Amino acid sequence: MATSLETEHPVKAHAWAAKDPSGIFAPLKFSRRATGERDVQFRVLYCGICHSDLHLAKNQWGFTIYPLIPGHEIVGVVTEVGSKVEKFRIGDKVGVGCLVGSCRQCDECTNNQESYCPKQILTISSRYYDGSPTYGGFSNIMVADEHFVIRWPDNLPLDTGAPLLCAGITTYSPLRNFGLDTPGVNVGVVGLGGIGHLTVKFAKAFGSRVTVISTSASKKEEAIGKFGADEFVVSHDEEQMQAAAGTLDGIIDTASGNHSLLPLVNLLKPHGKLILVGAPEKLEVPVFPLLIGGKSIVGTANGGVKEVQDMVEFAAEHNILPDVEVIPFDYVNTAMERLEKNDVKYRFVIDVGNSLKAD
Amino acid sequence: MATSLETEHPVKAHAWAAKDPSGIFAPLKFSRRATGERDVQFRVLYCGICHSDLHLAKNQWGFTIYPLIPGHEIVGVVTEVGSKVEKFRIGDKVGVGCLVGSCRQCDECTNNQESYCPKQILTISSRYYDGSPTYGGFSNIMVADEHFVIRWPDNLPLDTGAPLLCAGITTYSPLRNFGLDTPGVNVGVVGLGGIGHLTVKFAKAFGSRVTVISTSASKKEEAIGKFGADEFVVSHDEEQMQAAAGTLDGIIDTASGNHSLLPLVNLLKPHGKLILVGAPEKLEVPVFPLLIGGKSIVGTANGGVKEVQDMVEFAAEHNILPDVEVIPFDYVNTAMERLEKNDVKYRFVIDVGNSLKAD
Repeated sequence: MATSLETEHPVKAHAWAAKDPSGIFAPLKFSRRATGERDVQFRVLYCGICHSDLHLAKNQWGFTIYPLIPGHEIVGVVTEVGSKVEKFRIGDKVGVGCLVGSCRQCDECTNNQESYCPKQILTISSRYYDGSPTYGGFSNIMVADEHFVIRWPDNLPLDTGAPLLCAGITTYSPLRNFGLDTPGVNVGVVGLGGIGHLTVKFAKAFGSRVTVISTSASKKEEAIGKFGADEFVVSHDEEQMQAAAGTLDGIIDTASGNHSLLPLVNLLKPHGKLILVGAPEKLEVPVFPLLIGGKSIVGTANGGVKEVQDMVEFAAEHNILPDVEVIPFDYVNTAMERLEKNDVKYRFVIDVGNSLKAD
Repeated sequence: MATSLETEHPVKAHAWAAKDPSGIFAPLKFSRRATGERDVQFRVLYCGICHSDLHLAKNQWGFTIYPLIPGHEIVGVVTEVGSKVEKFRIGDKVGVGCLVGSCRQCDECTNNQESYCPKQILTISSRYYDGSPTYGGFSNIMVADEHFVIRWPDNLPLDTGAPLLCAGITTYSPLRNFGLDTPGVNVGVVGLGGIGHLTVKFAKAFGSRVTVISTSASKKEEAIGKFGADEFVVSHDEEQMQAAAGTLDGIIDTASGNHSLLPLVNLLKPHGKLILVGAPEKLEVPVFPLLIGGKSIVGTANGGVKEVQDMVEFAAEHNILPDVEVIPFDYVNTAMERLEKNDVKYRFVIDVGNSLKAD
């Protein structure tokens, strides 16, 4: 039964979408489901651009559903709530991050770890409970079950705050869950990009001592002077790496290209954890250094809904915001090209409300 | 200042030693230090053979000090104690495992984690505080600081119990430290060798449900019938591996050859830990499955002195003993050849007391 994008659901909506693996974005009319009894519908005001939006636009992970309407750092203002919605009212500021669904019953869900539920439904390029594709925040209207909707703190800006919903939680969650949120702990950050610069900010707010490890010596001034890191190590400078050996309790490794783990494992104290948040295809494990140091290589994927809520409240309280470049929709193709070259300080946010008008 | 092995220390001793990377063992006269004020000297009765003794005999890790007197699963009876020794008396049954020294001051040492002290001194092929090489239990006499001497439980056999001091603690420590010591937890064991069969025994004693993962279907009967494992999965049987996917809280991976980690990571539940105790040179990490499952690859190295003491007491209480083949010294070269082919069920123990006589 063929249905068109514009008529498969009752609520007419507008977006910018990629139609094929060229990854080129263009305006698209589509439709959203009617607001269900536990759903919150909201007008999208801002939406961050994450590197995974780019990966998906170009089908680099092989599971993109086209047309792709990306965007999973979505903030806006509630326009309608279902009859059984308890937490939100029309006019509330809200956000939606990486997830719009999960089984709600498994150990992960009942432990507020929905991002590890095997039946989790991603905000984009996934299938909702009814089988229809999920569409993200590159659109004027969003609808989601209230369980997956984040209450936006009043004093947290919507525009600069949006990237917290993916980039923020991706580092906040492991910092919290692996004991790297304590004063005096030594935290390393590999890569000073979107997630990396937020890692410095969160870790400093937790009272940690922060070492940025970067391929580029030119980032030292910004890492220390602007974001408040304590140390800066150039990863190909063996003398600097040797001087920092065995000093770190944990490292948030944001590098998404293939890279050598051994020099990073060597920076860890015994029992230290190298936490991967980037997604290189394969990496070689240096087994012996892991064994003799009792060290771990850990994967982590964003965070649960409660954790996201805690994170935005912590960010609001400690004035933690990503550095962003706010852009209109007609700049999105250029933004994607620049993102591919890591040419952004440090995150793009689309001004959806002012650059995408509904009919 | 050249000194001979026989005269560098005052106490004459006998051993079987490897003189070069051929790894061939022959009798050797050497000497031990006089019993210091905090030292315990003991007559060695039994000594287990560990795969790392073989690696070191052939200098496969590149840091062997020759002549090598291996053996770090050493048990015997106290013959002399220093003036300040508090815990031991002549006639006590004692053991020494992997370590004979550490800094005693760092965070690891003060947390009873001496096996992660950067200044730890291994029982064999290491340098003691005074710079002299450490000699292990392939000898008639052993001497060690009392801090590193284990009190042997009365009801724990000396012969079959000896391998607990390395093989036993190597699996007991991660089972304890990574929450795999709880009834109802699902534990996987890769490889049913010396460490693997002890993993099954300890995990069953903790009340865990145990799945053995093996390349060899022929081990099923022994794994389940003899050692009490609950499940047995042949690692190259995709159907069996698929059926077991996502079921394990943790895996103790004892495989020492290069092998693929992805199928093992797939067996883990979200947040599951793949714990490496074998030492393949390099392994490839499947990053994406680690990220989406929040999973870890963990290295671990035997355990601290207190943990070894707890372990032998737990083993005595729960009647946990390795299956061993007790051999005389003149069989040691054959034993090493068989060990290289994994042709032992499941650990060799040398009857030192009856096959190596002092002058």
